[in-house]
Amino acid sequence: MSDVFNLAVRTYYEDTDSAGVVYYANYLKFMERARTEFLRSLGYELTTLDEQYQVVFVVRSVAIEYLKPAHLNDLLIVSVLPIEFGRSRMVFEQQVHRKSTGELIVEAKVNLVCIHSKELKPISIPKEVKEALISKSCNLDI
Amino acid sequence: MSDVFNLAVRTYYEDTDSAGVVYYANYLKFMERARTEFLRSLGYELTTLDEQYQVVFVVRSVAIEYLKPAHLNDLLIVSVLPIEFGRSRMVFEQQVHRKSTGELIVEAKVNLVCIHSKELKPISIPKEVKEALISKSCNLDI
Amino acid sequence: MSDVFNLAVRTYYEDTDSAGVVYYANYLKFMERARTEFLRSLGYELTTLDEQYQVVFVVRSVAIEYLKPAHLNDLLIVSVLPIEFGRSRMVFEQQVHRKSTGELIVEAKVNLVCIHSKELKPISIPKEVKEALISKSCNLDI
Amino acid sequence: MSDVFNLAVRTYYEDTDSAGVVYYANYLKFMERARTEFLRSLGYELTTLDEQYQVVFVVRSVAIEYLKPAHLNDLLIVSVLPIEFGRSRMVFEQQVHRKSTGELIVEAKVNLVCIHSKELKPISIPKEVKEALISKSCNLDI
Repeated sequence: MSDVFNLAVRTYYEDTDSAGVVYYANYLKFMERARTEFLRSLGYELTTLDEQYQVVFVVRSVAIEYLKPAHLNDLLIVSVLPIEFGRSRMVFEQQVHRKSTGELIVEAKVNLVCIHSKELKPISIPKEVKEALISKSCNLDI
Repeated sequence: MSDVFNLAVRTYYEDTDSAGVVYYANYLKFMERARTEFLRSLGYELTTLDEQYQVVFVVRSVAIEYLKPAHLNDLLIVSVLPIEFGRSRMVFEQQVHRKSTGELIVEAKVNLVCIHSKELKPISIPKEVKEALISKSCNLDI
Repeated sequence: MSDVFNLAVRTYYEDTDSAGVVYYANYLKFMERARTEFLRSLGYELTTLDEQYQVVFVVRSVAIEYLKPAHLNDLLIVSVLPIEFGRSRMVFEQQVHRKSTGELIVEAKVNLVCIHSKELKPISIPKEVKEALISKSCNLDI
Repeated sequence: MSDVFNLAVRTYYEDTDSAGVVYYANYLKFMERARTEFLRSLGYELTTLDEQYQVVFVVRSVAIEYLKPAHLNDLLIVSVLPIEFGRSRMVFEQQVHRKSTGELIVEAKVNLVCIHSKELKPISIPKEVKEALISKSCNLDI
């Protein structure tokens, strides 16, 4: 688990609401930024996934828990951990911690489906991409 | 179920992304708009809930499923149905349909907690508010 | 000026920031919603403008002044008034008033260019659309 | 001009719209992120400006030009250059370039006012902060 992918996200006014906290929908933005940077760290850009493999990953469902509020100017650490794989389906576990205190702020399970970018139908995750993702998953004996 | 609260939401460029669909985080915005208008329809404004009862409803967790894509200029119907109540906790079932086709686009269960707006701790849902909400819930024999 | 197009926009948590006011970028969203509904009121949907005329209106520049803050739960009235036309260019004057107090909150001049939706180059505003817009402009002797 | 402050901003799906480009309001978010990081680089956090000096900088007006579209996954360089100072007022010139091509995408002049964070009235820019800002302005003989 030591090599879970982490993205640092700073919160700005745009992320907060008048209750003084980060608005609940915005964590889904942070989590997608982290998934995108995770893929980039494996060598896959959104644009090249489309051009090279004609695939795009779309979110099929999310279960998200809001445990603590984050505030303006917080530095958040957003993690990505692939935990399940199907033919075209995969599940990422994502957490958001506040860096200054180490507190767990939000956690989610995000179900994604690999879709053909033209036909918009589920398609197998490209073998090479899947292997790269599995190599970063927590479960070494998949 | 005939009197489920519905809010019509038009989609604009701001709601879409370059995949040509409504961005997944934005449904949480639409759902909050619908919850706010549902409360208003019962006589409770966000501002008066705070001023009169010193409470605010915060989202504790969401389980959301993305079934079909919505597109630019779609007219969406966002429903709100209270389905469970605890002392300070309640669950809303929310659906998003495309008006033109009747298709179910997104559905979610949203867990909310009633919080004291100064002390930021869970507090009983004000009796009057709870009764108004229960009168609109699907389950008549609660 | 009595028939300036107005759109009512309610502010929700999503629109505010932790300074307790509507976030400055979000007025550009409200203004685009109003422009879109203004076109719809003239019989032109974004989708049909593209399908029927192969045009899209893109923002070329904005000059915006923030005069007063808006807050959570405010009902805003967003106006649209075409004030200048070129071959492919037009200028809309847009204002945002708070309904409850009548105060002017924000005002802007928005320069738009009519673009061919495939070639992405400036193109004449379709004659029919331009006439409909001019009929709603403030200056009767254009 | 060699030491103009620059912030790199990656574009994600959240930033784009169904026209395939970065949505026009979102550049105001990028510009605020850059202003915030510019202040941080001078030693001033939003939170400490409030706590230490009881001030907040609010946007009074923006003149923004959209010159070229940005797209999904672009790496943008957002610059900040203070160009004018009054007692409580200052003007920042901000540009957005696409890193890969060097093209100028968007440019803006942003007028800010220093406000007392409790009384919400204009107040002199704290001397120390103003000196730090002036030291980074383009005009050495102010």
